[in-house]
This record gives sequence, structure tokens and C-alpha cells, in this order.
Amino acid sequence: MGMDTATGVHAAWLPPEAFRALGSHRVLVRGDGPLAVTVYEEVARACVDYGGRVGRSPDAEAGPYDLVFALTGDVPALPAVVDVRAAAGAEPLGEEGFVFARVGGVCFVLADAAAGLLYGLFHVVRLGGSAFEGGDVPAAAHRPAMRTRMLDHWDNLEVHPVMGHVERGYAGGSVFWRDGGPRGDLPRVRAYARLLAATGINAVSVNNVNVHTAETHLLTDRLGDVAELADVFRPYGIRLHLSVNFASPVVLGALTTADPLDGEVRAWWAKAAAGVYQAIPDFGGFVVKADSEGQPGPFSYGRSHADGANMLAEALAPFGGEVHWRAFVYNHQQDWRDRSTDRARAAYDHFAPQDGEFAANVVLQVKHGPMDFQTREPVSPVIAAMPRTRLAVELQVTQEYTGQQRHVCYLAPMWSGVLGFRPWGDGGEARDVAALAADPAAGGGLVAVSNVGDDPYWTGHPLAQANLYAFGRLAWAPDSDPAALLDEWIDLTFGALPSGDPAPLRSTLHAVMDGSWQTYERYTAPLGVGFMVRPGHHYGPDVDGYEYTPWGTYHYADRDGIGVDRTRATGTGYTGQYPQPWSEVYESAERCPDELLLFFHHVPYGHVLHSGTTVIQHIYDTHFAGALEAEAMRSRWAELAGGGLVDAALHTRVAERLDEQVRCAQEWRDQVNAYFLRKSGVPDAHGRHIP
Amino acid sequence: MGMDTATGVHAAWLPPEAFRALGSHRVLVRGDGPLAVTVYEEVARACVDYGGRVGRSPDAEAGPYDLVFALTGDVPALPAVVDVRAAAGAEPLGEEGFVFARVGGVCFVLADAAAGLLYGLFHVVRLGGSAFEGGDVPAAAHRPAMRTRMLDHWDNLEVHPVMGHVERGYAGGSVFWRDGGPRGDLPRVRAYARLLAATGINAVSVNNVNVHTAETHLLTDRLGDVAELADVFRPYGIRLHLSVNFASPVVLGALTTADPLDGEVRAWWAKAAAGVYQAIPDFGGFVVKADSEGQPGPFSYGRSHADGANMLAEALAPFGGEVHWRAFVYNHQQDWRDRSTDRARAAYDHFAPQDGEFAANVVLQVKHGPMDFQTREPVSPVIAAMPRTRLAVELQVTQEYTGQQRHVCYLAPMWSGVLGFRPWGDGGEARDVAALAADPAAGGGLVAVSNVGDDPYWTGHPLAQANLYAFGRLAWAPDSDPAALLDEWIDLTFGALPSGDPAPLRSTLHAVMDGSWQTYERYTAPLGVGFMVRPGHHYGPDVDGYEYTPWGTYHYADRDGIGVDRTRATGTGYTGQYPQPWSEVYESAERCPDELLLFFHHVPYGHVLHSGTTVIQHIYDTHFAGALEAEAMRSRWAELAGGGLVDAALHTRVAERLDEQVRCAQEWRDQVNAYFLRKSGVPDAHGRHIP
Repeated sequence: MGMDTATGVHAAWLPPEAFRALGSHRVLVRGDGPLAVTVYEEVARACVDYGGRVGRSPDAEAGPYDLVFALTGDVPALPAVVDVRAAAGAEPLGEEGFVFARVGGVCFVLADAAAGLLYGLFHVVRLGGSAFEGGDVPAAAHRPAMRTRMLDHWDNLEVHPVMGHVERGYAGGSVFWRDGGPRGDLPRVRAYARLLAATGINAVSVNNVNVHTAETHLLTDRLGDVAELADVFRPYGIRLHLSVNFASPVVLGALTTADPLDGEVRAWWAKAAAGVYQAIPDFGGFVVKADSEGQPGPFSYGRSHADGANMLAEALAPFGGEVHWRAFVYNHQQDWRDRSTDRARAAYDHFAPQDGEFAANVVLQVKHGPMDFQTREPVSPVIAAMPRTRLAVELQVTQEYTGQQRHVCYLAPMWSGVLGFRPWGDGGEARDVAALAADPAAGGGLVAVSNVGDDPYWTGHPLAQANLYAFGRLAWAPDSDPAALLDEWIDLTFGALPSGDPAPLRSTLHAVMDGSWQTYERYTAPLGVGFMVRPGHHYGPDVDGYEYTPWGTYHYADRDGIGVDRTRATGTGYTGQYPQPWSEVYESAERCPDELLLFFHHVPYGHVLHSGTTVIQHIYDTHFAGALEAEAMRSRWAELAGGGLVDAALHTRVAERLDEQVRCAQEWRDQVNAYFLRKSGVPDAHGRHIP
Repeated sequence: MGMDTATGVHAAWLPPEAFRALGSHRVLVRGDGPLAVTVYEEVARACVDYGGRVGRSPDAEAGPYDLVFALTGDVPALPAVVDVRAAAGAEPLGEEGFVFARVGGVCFVLADAAAGLLYGLFHVVRLGGSAFEGGDVPAAAHRPAMRTRMLDHWDNLEVHPVMGHVERGYAGGSVFWRDGGPRGDLPRVRAYARLLAATGINAVSVNNVNVHTAETHLLTDRLGDVAELADVFRPYGIRLHLSVNFASPVVLGALTTADPLDGEVRAWWAKAAAGVYQAIPDFGGFVVKADSEGQPGPFSYGRSHADGANMLAEALAPFGGEVHWRAFVYNHQQDWRDRSTDRARAAYDHFAPQDGEFAANVVLQVKHGPMDFQTREPVSPVIAAMPRTRLAVELQVTQEYTGQQRHVCYLAPMWSGVLGFRPWGDGGEARDVAALAADPAAGGGLVAVSNVGDDPYWTGHPLAQANLYAFGRLAWAPDSDPAALLDEWIDLTFGALPSGDPAPLRSTLHAVMDGSWQTYERYTAPLGVGFMVRPGHHYGPDVDGYEYTPWGTYHYADRDGIGVDRTRATGTGYTGQYPQPWSEVYESAERCPDELLLFFHHVPYGHVLHSGTTVIQHIYDTHFAGALEAEAMRSRWAELAGGGLVDAALHTRVAERLDEQVRCAQEWRDQVNAYFLRKSGVPDAHGRHIP
């Protein structure tokens, strides 16, 4: 554990020690092409470190192998003892799947394509010593659930005066860019690609969805900067994407319009796409934030979002590229006085009527909730509303509203809940969100906003690495247990400590991290109402911070009650965007789950929750509890100090951030409690001090 | 009216037309030195424009003169017909005073020093045609009330990432600096100096009181940049000052301490001061913000502010320089939970115990109110608390909290109220604030933060020029009537319109401006409670914006009442900082003036004001009224459109800002009313719509 010697940054979940078992054996790596070479190089490096041996072709003199990587088309190497087809079943293994088996003391990773070997390699790494121990293991196929497992960087080429280098980034500057151009630290980019590949991520977009002027040029005259990055990501099976400016034909092409139905505009994009694929033959496609928060889009020309997306899709189609078209479209200049307009409705209202109108290579990228990555939101109704549109679900690994990587907030439990949500309930069409995003025909995959920067620990808060790790793993296997993913991450990251015994560290990390999302929720905005953060930077409490703004994010607290009435009966009608049973469940203040009550209903402070307590007492109780939990997390972590279980510098970094988390949690507790005591006049039932 | 041809910026109150009368006559300008040359050049330019004639010595052939400028020591030119000594009375005229008289059809401006001639010149300009009309005018002496009439620029050398080029500046970039160095537009600086001299200002500080690194160097290696500016200001009788970094000996001198009692530190400052005076022999002195909002100061070394100020005073004393030491010292990291700490108390608590300890060339610069330039504050109790200390009163011409030069807010009525406030009431020691600041022995003068930038209209909002004008005039003559000063400004600025008849414009400007400060007060924070602005930039409403912050600016509104209890009986004891009668008046919720009630008292919403209405109804009434008044201002201004009374571009600029003022006033009205309706539950007595 510690800093990688080649890059000077933290090794995260791929320290040399994670390869100890692999590197201690005799390994055969077959297959051609860059990905197979990557597998070979990874194994070779491990063998140098740990005394194993690696070969590229069967070598009788070298003696038997303990582990064989081979393509299924590779007849000379293919072990007849493993029946790949039987293991794979009716479905093909696919470009990225692999079969793992152990027969007669030899492990096999077999795949139809080299990417499968790469993912098999990291599977073996995760297995560690256990891969090589025990008796036979029957052949089993491993395939990614999601075809696209994508990380979006909101990186700017230069430091934006307001948004900084990485918009909503809490880990320093960009790993890709600096001073308006390439950062030029390709070893770090390669280390990053390797980390991502180990989680299963296969797509990255390298610039902010808010595409400023310099970034707009990445599409044409600065394409070389992107190609250079693509060359680094390619050996790890990751296709690059660009966020593009919808107004590019005007900004770059000197056209007078960016109207998607204009012939010259279409020709401009076709030519631009051809140029991109000439430089980057495996380019992934475009990410587009159009008509959103000031970005240009088809609305300027009286066209629909389908018109806009399909134009770009047409340009990319000849090359196999895809358009990731974000559904984050709403009126950000709303009048707070107008209670009939509901930002939560916006994406559905805009996009559901266009279901079926999007081209086959358009993926509509939908935020998991209807608002904006809050700590608690219902699942977006758009996800169930567009059966004839390919949908990707967008998560936010960067902790914009969940502690900004100063707070421990392990997000996998939240994501797991989203992915397992069944929009049609348990009966009938019982598919969950993951199944919709993973659908081989209609699914668009899972996407997340990256939490990485040029910080030596990649993510600012060292424990925030676990969020990035878990995101990739959930995109591959959405039904993974978040606690089990945390164990994987702990084993890889801290598995080979000097003491050799990660158990006390493991229990500490589980104690600190497992419930951290719920702890964060307890001390921040209550019962799904959201926001209450400081405007602009979104850190720390400000109960009324967004209450009288144009952003559509309100809680409507008055002296009698709080919450947003989104019912059909008396509110904005948002509940009607859900299919049954949720439409009825959310409509009813009695049936609505407690944790979302204030998202759907305006209720008196005396309203009694399913938990048996009133709303106002719940606010007090959870805020006192959440702050105490943050203190307990800090105490627990402090017990590790000096014990040698974690690197001292890492321990200090986490300890400092826990100090800030405790301070901030107390600030949240006191501001929220004081605000509602002043407003409601209801004293705390337990007589605790509220300022 | 319009743009000055030499500088390309607006001529403000010195358009060529303002010199029409002067330039149409025969004028003799006697006297030597740069200020007399300035007077000569001003007259000469006017004569070129309007056909008059100017001479430097009596010339029989040139015939008689209509106006004579001469020094009292100038025997050959001194007209025996004017008895200067009799006019001046017991007091000497002083360096800046002058006598004006008209005898036998000839006007005389006579002074003991050339600065007096300069101020006499602008007196004649203000008189316009009337100077030369009618019969004899008895000799009358004119002297400035305040010895120091100073404008502080909060200009940075480069654009600060958060605070911009001019901190709290709303008129573009700095007129002095650009890109980290001198702006180099000396004609504009000269035009600026001329405008200031015409109002009576005689001192300017050229850099921000928050002294960043580049600005710190102005004291030593970048002194040449300051000297260049001093050369431009000198001919207009304005002495330059520098804001200095208290930590300069460490930053610039490589000392390890800035301890004011350290011998090396004292030697460093002595040498630095000597260097300054070598470059700028008439340098005014230093402005210091120490131990305030993060600036360094003597507290770091366990020393008092007197220690710090006196050290700098010692360095400046040999050269006649002065230290302007700001009293704006408070804890800006206050815990909002702690209701016993009161920012309003801070300046008094820090400084009053040190009365008598400051050197003779230290001026303690005290903000007019105890907080921070709010729309309504009581007069600072420091002003009456330090009889053995020279005090300057600091105003803020830049409209940080009063509409940021997007709103019309003519501030002279507020300043006039401050200057006329009698800390000891009307009996006994009945001196007012102006008398204290003007005291020949103990007074430090009047200082204000500039509202000027590189905007073509100097001040962003063209009508904000009137604030700058009125400030200078009030520093010269604090008992001036604000409406009369507005007339002066109107006559000079708009006096020679194409139509030649400024009357409709005059009545419009009075209608729009006279009551604009009270209008602004009506639609913003009520009854002296202050703030309720958006944190950071301080523009627009946010009732709770500062309520839970460390800044010490709270209103403590809950469902029952609002206001800050600053009484001795039950509150922070701040009222005890005032002498009688105010200490008792403010202590009593019944006697406290309505407009300051919430500054001194926490009262129920139902508390009945002297006006007969309740606090909550007052809030509703004033906010509805204020917004309507803003609309009326806009309508009134709109009537001038196309009438030729004002330049079309200027009319448009003002009209656009009035649109924003109306929008913002309505936003204030609705946010404040909605906030208090939600909190109090009390409906508007008149049933008006509150969102």
C-alpha cells in the first residue's frame, strides 16, 4: 500500500501486492492484439515482483502452467477439458465475457475476444490466492450486465473561474488537462485506465458536459489531444467519448445555424464525425447536454430533442458511434412564486412523448432521480416511460451533494437501491432498473460522473476510492452486495498490509463506511425533501439557500408544515408519471415511504410517520443521531492510528477529513434543528439543546 | 453633455458647458506653482471654448478683467477693494480656503495658497452665470469643514478571482491598474482628479485595503507606479495614500516578524517611509486594515492596535504623513449559535480603551455605523467615545449594500443624517458627528470608499455620479442640504442641454433620486435589522443568507418575532456604549426610533410602532410600497425618452438599470413578505397577494 513508484500517486486497488498470487505462479497468456498484450504485461510484471513465470506459447520445457489465458478461437491453446459453450449456455460469451475454470490444478480464463481475457485477469486478481487453491472449479461464464459502463469526466481544459478545473470535482485538477491543453502526464492516465479496467469500466468521456470554447475545439482542430488519450485507454478496453457543443457548426464551422434539420449542419457533423474516426477508429461517441442550464440545443431552432440527437446519430452511425443524449432538461429560470411548475416533472414531460423517435444509436442518459443527484430521491419515472428508447442510467460518483469527498459517504447502497427498484412493482412486469439499462436490445448501460482528479489519492478522500470501484463493479454486476464490494475493495487496496492481517481494518472500514450514506442523509435534508445546501458550491447547510431561487428546488416550509405536494389530487401531478403501483403509493401520504414523504407531500409538522414519530421529531432525532454517528466514525478511525494497518499519511488524510465531517455534521444538525424549531415552535421531545 | 473628447469617457459634472460663463469673460489668474497653473489652464481652456480671455499678469492694454484669481501675498495684484482679513474673520483662511467677492462689476477669488484658488475656481464654475450678474457681493470666506476629504479605492492591481478588479466595485475595472501593473491611461486619471477636485476631495488612496501580494510591493519596488499617479493628482491638490500590508517587513523585507515593538521592524518601516517620500514628497500616508477579516495585524504579536498604528506613525512623522488606521475590527468567525457575542460592539470594545494612546498623526478611521455600511444603522458609538483620538468617519460611496449601482440610491440624505447626528443629544455637548470629524485639533476628516471604475460613465449607473459628487461636497460643507447638492450636480452635469431648459429634467431627477434611499430601505431589510442579502456578492434578497454564518449578522427571526436584543437589560449590552440620551433611548423598545427598532430589540411581530402599525404589517406595507415606488421611478424616467433633455445613450443606460431595479425590488418584496408570512402566519391586513 502507498504510492505507486511509476506515477507517484496512490496505487488504489491495484497495488503490486494485489498481484501476489498471480505473480507467484506459472502463467500462459495466449492471444494477439493490444488487450492480450496488456494481459501479458500485467502478468509479466506480477511475475517479476513475485517470482512467477509467464509465457506466450505452450512450452513443454517450461513445465506445466498453473493458469492459462486463451481465446476460444485459439485451437492450439484451447484446453479440451473446459467446455466453454456449455458454460456460456444459450447466450454467446460476447466481446467482454469470459469463462473461468480450474481443472486438475490448472486455472483457465477463456474468452471469445481479448477484452474477455482482460476482465478475466482482474477476476483472477480479485480471487487472489483462492484462485489457485482447492479442487476443481466448474467452468462458469462471466459477462457484464451492462454493455456500456461509462465514466463521464466533467473536466475543463483550464481552470474555470467559477467551476474550477473539474466541475463538481473534489480531488484537485484534471488528470487529462492543464492550462488549456493536455496535461501530458500519460503514465498517470495509463494508471487510471488500468484502475478503471479492473472495475469493468469500458467507456470514458474526457471533457465536461458544459462545453466551453476551448473544449469545443477538441472535436476538430484539437482532436490530436483526444487521440493521444485514446491511445492510452485502448489497451485497457476503454473507448473514449467526447462531450460536444451542440452549437459546434456555428462555433467551429462558421455556419450561421446549428439547426439539426439544416442540410449544411448535417453535412458539417458528418464531416466532423469522419474526422474523429480517422484519428480514433474505435471512438465511442458523443455526450451531449443540450438545452440545459444554458447550454445550446435544438430548442433554439424549434426542433425536438429527437431531431437533435438523431442528427448526431446519423453522423456517427457509419462508424458505429453512439450519442449519449442527456435527459437533464428543465427550466432553470423558474419563478419560485409559481408552485405549479415542478422541476421533477421536466425530464418526463420533455422526453416521454418522444419515445420511439430516437435513432438506434442514441442512448438517452437519464439521471437516476428526477432532480439532481440528491442524497435521497425517488427513481426517475423516465426510466419506465420509454420502452422504445435506449436508456442509460446516470449516477454521480463525485460527491457533489453527498459530502464532496470531505465526508465519508459510501454510495453503493444507494445505487444498489436504484438498480434494484422495480418500476412496476413485484408483480407482472417485474424488471428492475438494472434490467432495463442492461437490456441487450434496448439498454443503454450505466454511466456515472467521475470523482477523480490529480490528487495523490485520486479522489481527495482516500475512502472515496471505494465509490469509484463499486460503481464499475455494479455496472458489471448490478446485483452485487454493496458490503461484498467493499470487501473486494478492502482486500485489493489493503489486503497485503505489513501486518498481513486486514481483519481489524476490515471491521473498522465496514463500521465507518457501510452505513455512511444513511448517516449523511440523517444529518442533512430530511425525508427526501432535498437540497438545503449552500447555493453555488453545494457544500454545507443552508436551509433556505435555494428556497427563493429560480432553480426549482424548494421545500416550502412554513410555520405549520413542510414538503412539496406532487400529488395528482392537489399538487403538481408528478405522481402520475409513475406506473402502478408506485403512482398510487406515492400519491398517498399514508402509503408513501417515510424516506420520500416530503418529496411527494406537504404535511404538518405533527404528521406521524410509519416509524411512529412525528415529522418534526424525526427531524430532530435524525439530526442528533447523524451527528453522533459522524463522531463515532471518527472515533473508530482514530483507533487505527499508529497500528500499522494503514499507511500513516493515508490515516492522517482520512482523520483530517473526518474532523471536517464531524464539524460539518454538527453544523447541519444545529442549523436544521434551529431552523425548524424557530419555524415550528415545537420543542424537542427529549429536551436536547437546539441553538 | 456626453463623452469627453480627450478621454472618451463621460464628462460627468465638468462638461465644457459648465465653464460657459467663466469662459465668456475676461479673467486674470495670478500665482505660481502647479495649482495656480491648473487654475490658469482650466480658465484658458474655457476661454478657448467660449471666446473669453485669460491673462497671467495685469495688462492695461487688455482692458479691465471680469474675474481675478490672486494670492493674498501677491501685492501687485491684490485688490485693495477687498478686505480679505475682514472676510476671513478670526480664523486664518488656511491652505485651502478662499474669499469670493464682487466689487464694481469685478469678481475676486483670493486665497492664501494656490489650493484656495483652485477651490475658488470650482466655486465660480458652480455659480455659473450668476457669478457675473447683479451688483456687488460682499467678500465671504469659504473654507472646507474637514481638513481631510478622502476617497479610498478598493482597487486591486489585477482581477482578484473572487473580488474582481475593484473589490465591491460596480463600475468595471480599475482606473489606475490593469493586468497587475499601471493601467497607463493617465488622461483618464487626470480627468478623474479634476472631477474630484471640483467636489473638494483632497486625498485619495489608490489600492484596496485588503492588500494582496502584488499590491504590497507598491510600497517599495513598485513605488514608481504610485509616484506616476501622484504626479497626475498633484496639480489638483490631491495627496496620494497607499493601503499597506501590516506584514510588509516579512513579505518585502525578509524579516521574520512584523512585531511593531521590534527594533528591526521599526527601522524597516522608517526606511520604507523615507523611500516613499523621496519619490513622492507630498505623499499623504498609509491606510491600514489590520487584524480584520483575515488581514495581518498587531494581534499576531500580542500588541495593541495603538502599538501597531504608532509604529507606522513614527515612520511617517518626519515627513508629515499620517496613518489612517481602520477601526473595522471584529470576529468574522463568530459562532452563530452564540447570541452573547455582538459584532456591533466590536469596534468600541477594541478601541475605546485605547483612547489617548494613539500618536498625533494617527487617524482612527471609523465606519459610520457599527456594522458594515448597511442601508440603515445607528451611528457608531466609537465616534463619541474617543475624545483624545483623532477620528475620521468612513462612508461608502460604492453601493455595496445599497443597490450596487444597478439601483438608484442617492445616499446624501443618509450621510447628512449621520453627519448631523448629535451623540450627546441637543443639550450640553451638542456637537454633531460632522463637528467631531472636522475638529481642527482632534478631527480626522471624512473618508469614503470610491464608486468609480473604468466604466464610460465612471460609476456604472450614471445617476450614481451624484453620490460621488455629494460626498465631496459634504466633506467640504457637511451642513449642505442634500437636495441642494443634487441641484448643483444637475446644473453642472445637465445644465447646458440642447433645449437649454433643464427644468423638466430637474424635477424628474428630484422625483427619481431625492427619496431613493428611503425607497431602497423600504423594499430591503426592515427596521434597521440589516443584511438579508445574498452572501458573498451582497446583491438581492436572501433573508436567511447570513443567518447561520460566522459573520455576526443575524436577525433572529422565529415564528413569534424578530430583531436583535442589544439592550443592557436582557441583551448584548451594546446600548451601553452610547452616551446619554441615546443609551436610554435605544435601550427602550418604546422610545427607540422605529427605523432602528430591530437593530436594538427583539420584538413580537405584533409590536406596535410609533407609526401605529405592527412590525409585521410594517414589513408588508413598506415592501409593497417600496416596489411600487421603484416602478414609479421607472415610469417617471421613461417620460424623458426622446425628449432631448438627456443624451439618448445615457437615458437608455439609466432605463435599463431601472428595469433591473424594478425587477429586484419586486423580488425583495416577494421574498421578504413570503418569508415573514410563512414564519409569522399573520396575513396582510389589506389582503394583497403574497406568494
